[in-house]
Amino acid sequence: MKNRILDLFSIKYPIVQAGMVWCSGWRLAAAVSNSGGLGVIGAGSMSPDLLKEHVQKCRSNTHNNFAVNIPLFSKYTSTHIDIIIKENVPIAFTSAGNPEIWTKKLQSHGIIVVHVISNLKFALKAVNAGVDALVCEGFEAGGHNGRDETTTFCLVPLIKKHVTIPMIAAGGISCGKSMLAAIVLGADAVQIGSRFVVSDESSAHINFKNQILASKEGDTILTLKELTPVRMLKNNFYNKIEYAYSIKANSDMLKEILGKGRAKKGMFLGDLDDGELEIGQVACLLESIQPASLIIQEIINEFNFEKNRLIKL
Amino acid sequence: MKNRILDLFSIKYPIVQAGMVWCSGWRLAAAVSNSGGLGVIGAGSMSPDLLKEHVQKCRSNTHNNFAVNIPLFSKYTSTHIDIIIKENVPIAFTSAGNPEIWTKKLQSHGIIVVHVISNLKFALKAVNAGVDALVCEGFEAGGHNGRDETTTFCLVPLIKKHVTIPMIAAGGISCGKSMLAAIVLGADAVQIGSRFVVSDESSAHINFKNQILASKEGDTILTLKELTPVRMLKNNFYNKIEYAYSIKANSDMLKEILGKGRAKKGMFLGDLDDGELEIGQVACLLESIQPASLIIQEIINEFNFEKNRLIKL
Repeated sequence: MKNRILDLFSIKYPIVQAGMVWCSGWRLAAAVSNSGGLGVIGAGSMSPDLLKEHVQKCRSNTHNNFAVNIPLFSKYTSTHIDIIIKENVPIAFTSAGNPEIWTKKLQSHGIIVVHVISNLKFALKAVNAGVDALVCEGFEAGGHNGRDETTTFCLVPLIKKHVTIPMIAAGGISCGKSMLAAIVLGADAVQIGSRFVVSDESSAHINFKNQILASKEGDTILTLKELTPVRMLKNNFYNKIEYAYSIKANSDMLKEILGKGRAKKGMFLGDLDDGELEIGQVACLLESIQPASLIIQEIINEFNFEKNRLIKL
Repeated sequence: MKNRILDLFSIKYPIVQAGMVWCSGWRLAAAVSNSGGLGVIGAGSMSPDLLKEHVQKCRSNTHNNFAVNIPLFSKYTSTHIDIIIKENVPIAFTSAGNPEIWTKKLQSHGIIVVHVISNLKFALKAVNAGVDALVCEGFEAGGHNGRDETTTFCLVPLIKKHVTIPMIAAGGISCGKSMLAAIVLGADAVQIGSRFVVSDESSAHINFKNQILASKEGDTILTLKELTPVRMLKNNFYNKIEYAYSIKANSDMLKEILGKGRAKKGMFLGDLDDGELEIGQVACLLESIQPASLIIQEIINEFNFEKNRLIKL
């Protein structure tokens, strides 16, 4: 297989593991990179010191390229950027902020910059900022997302129509079939989050992993659009949000309900009632906890099988 | 090309034109059936007499199979069912109601029954009722839809995993690429609505067609979930709904705002301000008004082109 994303990242398979808070530390990133995909450390839940440690451990555990995902709204953003420059991280994924500010600086140190967008407006802004590739994240994706509710089926062709740089599709992708479908729609590669949350190497709490496997259709929702929209499993914490909406709570009240540390509480510490459990809509299709290497191998096998099935159509 | 849907409907291409209120009368249905797809008359906006007239005119204008879509919540449902039996319509699409009630009766007259669902629960219910095939409609689809917000990318593989009868994917599909992607995800065929709304033969008002072509990403929304959820273009009527939500309107107040005849006003009479403009999220990708025959030919050409591109991957 040959394509622009494989060339850009120097990887074997066009599978990017999403950089996720509380789930994707060096163990997961190294395992994915060792298996032919692109492993991504999620800096969003890390202090600068912790990020540095994860980058160094990831490097010690894989000879292949890996990346760091940096949300651009964090108080640590600037320090995180300095760390990945100093540590010679080859690829940075930036998200949830303005790509104008950091892209050139990162690129001037030879770092490849990929920006995550959820609509055409931000895609064009990122292209203007000179990013090397885009992640196009549909409505069905887990965690933080856009307000336009554009699904992967509509977003990928829309971005493809207006943008020429390499594009990675995200949202609703967990298997070889969905990977092939995303590539058919115009993506060069896919980013997979939820399925790697339930990998052996993910640092998600086992309670959270089991809750994902037990989840059914309709169990996730994109909520808190007044703050930063986020897709998560419905639970007791979500019931509180729903109640707040029913009494017309304003943003300040929603912020107070959200409080601090909800995602850590749920995803890392396993509090299924009061934690925030960020996950994609595709959770209802996930079946088991597997090593990252097996996940990638299964996806690629199914991708090839489906491709061959199509030829016979 | 060979597959179960082509055999079931005796058609050439696995493209079903969605049966839509105010847009899909005999002209559109006959044009689609004459072009190798399955044309579907939308009975939802027709009185029994009008439906009879459209069925007879459709039959006079095509030698190929066509279908009628019957929403199961209408005051005319029973009369509509009698008409399609009496007129020997070969295929019925039922939607928005319980398939238990009518499936066996229709089938006992040799009519093929396809039921439209938007989640797994209703899919299993329809299979239990003995329907011959399913339309699986994702969150991005226009018009009436489910409450679970499950997108095409997640819904199609989920239904495929649990159901063995033939399956038609709907929602976000308007071109050969999205058709191929849906088939990759597990569908046997696709149902296309929005693109046929902007066909020459559609009975949608020209104002509505032009508004669709001018629409941008984020311009449609799935709203009125407290009544029957519906995806439509945002306009002055939608602003009224939004205001009603902001003051915590209850279902009765929402019903009063909706009133009667909104869809006719917007889609058929062209009132872009106060009408209900039902259309899918894919509207932002549509570019021109074309004859149905050209739409189908373009889709099939792109489908074949993309299939050949994949082979070389």
